[in-house]
Amino acid sequence: MQSMPDVSPTKWHLAHTTWFFETFLLAEHDPGYSLFDPDFGYLFNSYYEALGDRHPRPCRGLVTRPSLERVRDYRRAVDECLVASLDGFAARDDWPHIAALIDLGCHHEEQHQELLLTDIKHVLAQNPLAPAYHDAPATEEGRAPDLAWHAFEEGVYEIGHQGDGFAYDNETPRHRRYVHGFALASRLVTNGEYRAFIEDGGYGDARLWLSDGWDWVRAGSRTAPLYWRRADDGWQQFTLHGLEPLDEDEPVAHLSHFEADAFARWAGARLPREEELEIAVRLHGEAGPVNDLGSGRLHPAIAPAAARGPLLQLQGDVWEWTQSAYMAYPGYRPPPGAVGEYNGKFMCNQYVLRGGSCVTPAGHWRPSYRNFFPAHAQWQFSGVRLAKDL
Amino acid sequence: MQSMPDVSPTKWHLAHTTWFFETFLLAEHDPGYSLFDPDFGYLFNSYYEALGDRHPRPCRGLVTRPSLERVRDYRRAVDECLVASLDGFAARDDWPHIAALIDLGCHHEEQHQELLLTDIKHVLAQNPLAPAYHDAPATEEGRAPDLAWHAFEEGVYEIGHQGDGFAYDNETPRHRRYVHGFALASRLVTNGEYRAFIEDGGYGDARLWLSDGWDWVRAGSRTAPLYWRRADDGWQQFTLHGLEPLDEDEPVAHLSHFEADAFARWAGARLPREEELEIAVRLHGEAGPVNDLGSGRLHPAIAPAAARGPLLQLQGDVWEWTQSAYMAYPGYRPPPGAVGEYNGKFMCNQYVLRGGSCVTPAGHWRPSYRNFFPAHAQWQFSGVRLAKDL
Amino acid sequence: MQSMPDVSPTKWHLAHTTWFFETFLLAEHDPGYSLFDPDFGYLFNSYYEALGDRHPRPCRGLVTRPSLERVRDYRRAVDECLVASLDGFAARDDWPHIAALIDLGCHHEEQHQELLLTDIKHVLAQNPLAPAYHDAPATEEGRAPDLAWHAFEEGVYEIGHQGDGFAYDNETPRHRRYVHGFALASRLVTNGEYRAFIEDGGYGDARLWLSDGWDWVRAGSRTAPLYWRRADDGWQQFTLHGLEPLDEDEPVAHLSHFEADAFARWAGARLPREEELEIAVRLHGEAGPVNDLGSGRLHPAIAPAAARGPLLQLQGDVWEWTQSAYMAYPGYRPPPGAVGEYNGKFMCNQYVLRGGSCVTPAGHWRPSYRNFFPAHAQWQFSGVRLAKDL
Amino acid sequence: MQSMPDVSPTKWHLAHTTWFFETFLLAEHDPGYSLFDPDFGYLFNSYYEALGDRHPRPCRGLVTRPSLERVRDYRRAVDECLVASLDGFAARDDWPHIAALIDLGCHHEEQHQELLLTDIKHVLAQNPLAPAYHDAPATEEGRAPDLAWHAFEEGVYEIGHQGDGFAYDNETPRHRRYVHGFALASRLVTNGEYRAFIEDGGYGDARLWLSDGWDWVRAGSRTAPLYWRRADDGWQQFTLHGLEPLDEDEPVAHLSHFEADAFARWAGARLPREEELEIAVRLHGEAGPVNDLGSGRLHPAIAPAAARGPLLQLQGDVWEWTQSAYMAYPGYRPPPGAVGEYNGKFMCNQYVLRGGSCVTPAGHWRPSYRNFFPAHAQWQFSGVRLAKDL
Repeated sequence: MQSMPDVSPTKWHLAHTTWFFETFLLAEHDPGYSLFDPDFGYLFNSYYEALGDRHPRPCRGLVTRPSLERVRDYRRAVDECLVASLDGFAARDDWPHIAALIDLGCHHEEQHQELLLTDIKHVLAQNPLAPAYHDAPATEEGRAPDLAWHAFEEGVYEIGHQGDGFAYDNETPRHRRYVHGFALASRLVTNGEYRAFIEDGGYGDARLWLSDGWDWVRAGSRTAPLYWRRADDGWQQFTLHGLEPLDEDEPVAHLSHFEADAFARWAGARLPREEELEIAVRLHGEAGPVNDLGSGRLHPAIAPAAARGPLLQLQGDVWEWTQSAYMAYPGYRPPPGAVGEYNGKFMCNQYVLRGGSCVTPAGHWRPSYRNFFPAHAQWQFSGVRLAKDL
Repeated sequence: MQSMPDVSPTKWHLAHTTWFFETFLLAEHDPGYSLFDPDFGYLFNSYYEALGDRHPRPCRGLVTRPSLERVRDYRRAVDECLVASLDGFAARDDWPHIAALIDLGCHHEEQHQELLLTDIKHVLAQNPLAPAYHDAPATEEGRAPDLAWHAFEEGVYEIGHQGDGFAYDNETPRHRRYVHGFALASRLVTNGEYRAFIEDGGYGDARLWLSDGWDWVRAGSRTAPLYWRRADDGWQQFTLHGLEPLDEDEPVAHLSHFEADAFARWAGARLPREEELEIAVRLHGEAGPVNDLGSGRLHPAIAPAAARGPLLQLQGDVWEWTQSAYMAYPGYRPPPGAVGEYNGKFMCNQYVLRGGSCVTPAGHWRPSYRNFFPAHAQWQFSGVRLAKDL
Repeated sequence: MQSMPDVSPTKWHLAHTTWFFETFLLAEHDPGYSLFDPDFGYLFNSYYEALGDRHPRPCRGLVTRPSLERVRDYRRAVDECLVASLDGFAARDDWPHIAALIDLGCHHEEQHQELLLTDIKHVLAQNPLAPAYHDAPATEEGRAPDLAWHAFEEGVYEIGHQGDGFAYDNETPRHRRYVHGFALASRLVTNGEYRAFIEDGGYGDARLWLSDGWDWVRAGSRTAPLYWRRADDGWQQFTLHGLEPLDEDEPVAHLSHFEADAFARWAGARLPREEELEIAVRLHGEAGPVNDLGSGRLHPAIAPAAARGPLLQLQGDVWEWTQSAYMAYPGYRPPPGAVGEYNGKFMCNQYVLRGGSCVTPAGHWRPSYRNFFPAHAQWQFSGVRLAKDL
Repeated sequence: MQSMPDVSPTKWHLAHTTWFFETFLLAEHDPGYSLFDPDFGYLFNSYYEALGDRHPRPCRGLVTRPSLERVRDYRRAVDECLVASLDGFAARDDWPHIAALIDLGCHHEEQHQELLLTDIKHVLAQNPLAPAYHDAPATEEGRAPDLAWHAFEEGVYEIGHQGDGFAYDNETPRHRRYVHGFALASRLVTNGEYRAFIEDGGYGDARLWLSDGWDWVRAGSRTAPLYWRRADDGWQQFTLHGLEPLDEDEPVAHLSHFEADAFARWAGARLPREEELEIAVRLHGEAGPVNDLGSGRLHPAIAPAAARGPLLQLQGDVWEWTQSAYMAYPGYRPPPGAVGEYNGKFMCNQYVLRGGSCVTPAGHWRPSYRNFFPAHAQWQFSGVRLAKDL
């Protein structure tokens, strides 16, 4: 099921992540390997031009065959081959290169675990019956703590991936950046705060919006975030647990960059720059439990009342839109070959999001992690934290 | 799975045909009936404006719930209620009206049996693997007989439904029409004949096409019928049995009105008028077995060599495009209420096809039967028989 | 200036009509003629595929050069050549063929005289200042006479062009048609009657509309005819004399086929068939003065109160939409060569209008005249006369 | 004449620049002023939402009235009023604010002087006759000098407007930026170098393009810059002097950001960042004559052979695409009121260009000047200078 071109069917995610291992590991590095099905390269290549033609993205939903069962066979067969090849790989001279590809394949699959859930949410939301994907967790009581501001000093900071662990190429190289004094809000913006923006006429006041954003509002006759629905007795929100009354204290989610930016302007603040969030999380990283996929909640949570530090929710809950266009770091070079298409070619007309979400697999995220989507995208768990110049 | 707005998912066809019985029979005429699921009216109403809002046609493919199993329960439940109600209905004063609705519901379901197969064919054709729906029948040998012309005399003829049997409202009233002398080809146009048109540059010669047709050719960069594919060793054709070499003697299928019209012009002939085909079939109806859904072949067949009359293939194989715009017969009145939307409101920018196809259920067709599609439609089994003025 | 693809700039009309004479008369039949400017064929060919490539229709408005002055030189030069060649032509054996082309060129230019005014009206209507093309005539007082019905008998009638005068190929051949008993309204539908349709919710009731028409209403959020504007103190109408209060007694104009058809259904009537209007005008042709371009009014006029016969306004005022799809008459053959593209290739997805309008040049119209436009077209002076079955 | 939504008619430019003075100076600061025509605000407001509704940009070409003559009257009347008011303004307390608006109005008009020429070029290029706007200057002989690289040191630099002169808000505030070591090419890329990219298959190799750029290439079937045309005897280029043979030594012009970026990747280099070009021009500003509008050439010129410094053509000839997304400088604040819409709201999905072009009015440009267009825009005189990391 493919509810819009950006969404992929569950079956496709399952097959594509296995195709990634088959293509970049087995087919390229195991001379004795023969493809499970030569047609699968065409069907399950996502966007790697260097690997030849492929099934068009908007048509992924049309592929009724192979069946789900056969895709599961594919996953099993490739997994078994890969496991069987590991000892041989590890004994080779090019093992560091192969190991890096295995690492990449695992992180790639984790990205698709997140997309799989955001895509399923989008599909179910198209259904007038508003079906639930999952039972709701026990209701969470509580109020969001008052918003406070935390200041950071002007100066030269180091930005980008640090250390030996895994990182995508777009997080490198680590480099110096001059940062002017700024302040960040202590928590994410809530549904209640966003509702005040709506009730103050936010979607009708052109002066709050970027020019492209205002066109987007009018072309789509937009008056609320993607999954909000106005009911007779107040706002509802479509979630992975079905349609629920809007909780005013939860972080607002599924905003476009346009909406996040307009809200910030209305609030007398601005969106953070991506380096500001990276600096913040390095200095004041999450002390308590993180609401990511590991929590099983599948929905953003109210910020904890008992403050565990100056900044809450820096990790998990919702991806935080920044005002930073997605651009190459100074000295950036994509790796050679088809995997070089993983990130670099998308550095155009996209904006960076930071911090991970409630459906990001546990352990997937890093402080230098750069997610990116076009300014109109709403179907990810994307929200906003306010920032200010000092 | 919905491969284009005109195509509906199999599950939708199954539910919609049951919804038709539930809505027009049980809900309207059985006061004790309570709906199987009140949401289904929104999901499975096709186009009846009088019955309120409904799920948009291009979004039928997005409905992952209810599941197929629940739709089957729906079919079973409504069928059982209907059967249980029959005796009661038959005892009532309005039984003739109810009986007519039951009749309509059955013919409606037969129409969807045909659409279900043409829709599945379209879905499978989008798949680069070209999967088969069904095993191919034993290969048919033979050659199409030579084309001959059969003449009909000028005069006033009666056109439209005759007798007591079932007919759609658009086949009525029976009325007089002045018909000028004409001749019809003895059989359908074959793939081989159509290939000669292609090889003669038919798709590149603007003078052969209607103006709208020429725009359609260029906008779609069209060079062959919908399911033809040029392979290294000649033409192939996607069928419900998968991809097969093109049989030159079979009737050409899946033409648009534009293609049928251009071919006829190239051949020095013209498309028939709908009344001409009705006159022909009344005078020279099929004597032998008909290649409709009852044959199980699911594909057009070569015309029988041993001629059984002056005109072959008047019924079954492929729907025959006419030059007749789909218009109301003199004195036509749609029935009152929502069922009045069945035919009348579509009498605009569509063209009539006659004769039934290889996937029309046995017994569904009548000589006065009017099928209709827009001039660009190709996904039905639609072909062409040539006509001439005398 | 080109306000939509259907509209052509005034300069283009001036050049194209001269190009028609240059191409079909001088270049083809005068061996000594050399083209005024070889580039003009590309610029000013409207749609004749047989004459090669041409400037795309939607781009006509982009041609700032040649200047208007040079186009006027072009007109003068071609006119002079043509006049100078006439005696020579008249002495030749093929004079009848040449004379027929001259006739065609004159009628072609008359058609463009009408289009020039409807196109200018459309251009000025886009301007928020609503400028007038022409001073308004003295205001006309009066009331539309009551609507009456006039009946016609069932039988076989002859339809199509009769006699030796000029006619387009699409009016031929004259042929027999079986016509069922019908009645026509004595005058055109008025603005006041159409306003009642609007106020009765006509644009909001799907049951009144053809399915394509209802899509057209919703896609365009339409609530009134093309040039109507709702002002604080009632309806206004943009005319060639600028913005004016709506006169309730004038014929309604600038309806699409969809609007005419929906109005007729709301009124418990139907659109006429084209043969019905041809029969009516032959039997009860206009006795009094006709409101065509000769009247200088450039706007439809109230039907005369002193009835001059059973049927008023059969000629002039507004083109009358029929329910007849534009199709070939039995035995129709387009002439050979490029002029064969004049009419025949447009016989698809268009509807016939009859009777001429207030901007049709005097003497241009005939009882067998068939105008045709797509069902959504509104920018011609197009209105409606009601019909009924007997 | 409006050949695409981005292009405005000449008459509109003339009226809009006067409207700017009338609106922001006279109407706002001269209490006795009455508007020349109250409708002009609707017609000639470009994009200031705070000033109310306005005529849609894509429809500017439809406004045949007011005439050019009346627009000239408008310009004369507003100019006279403004001159007459100057002494009174200068005596007031808010004179600094008013003087700044006058300054802004003048720079605004200079921007439109440039747009007027690029828009006229685009309009004339649509004409199959390829008319010239202006006589060609005397042909320039010569060869582009060899390309050399000039290095710049890593460190903290000050970026942004400096001093008391005029600048747009988007050039402020001046701020510190950490810049890594880089090198710039000594001159612009030439037509000959770009032709080598084409001949090496540049438009057919997906690996060279940003993902959005590759979509743009395929959707538009692009194979060369906007105004290049392949003739039988080699490449031609449409210029303001008409169609001319391509000069291999002239700078390539009318590239999109996508093309500039793909060329740089093919050349083993990258696009500069905007701060790199600002640093370069401050350190090595143009010593010799600049090819801007003052030269009267209206076309880029070959770089001078006798080098006048390490870097040529930093100013004039063509705007230089950078890899920098157009974003707010740290601490940026748009001015209050409608003039705050001048720049800030466009900081989304646009890329910065630096250096001015051959049609930028003399004296208009500054080293901190930031021009910006979407990545697909080609109709400005936009080219490329290569950069490298050190």
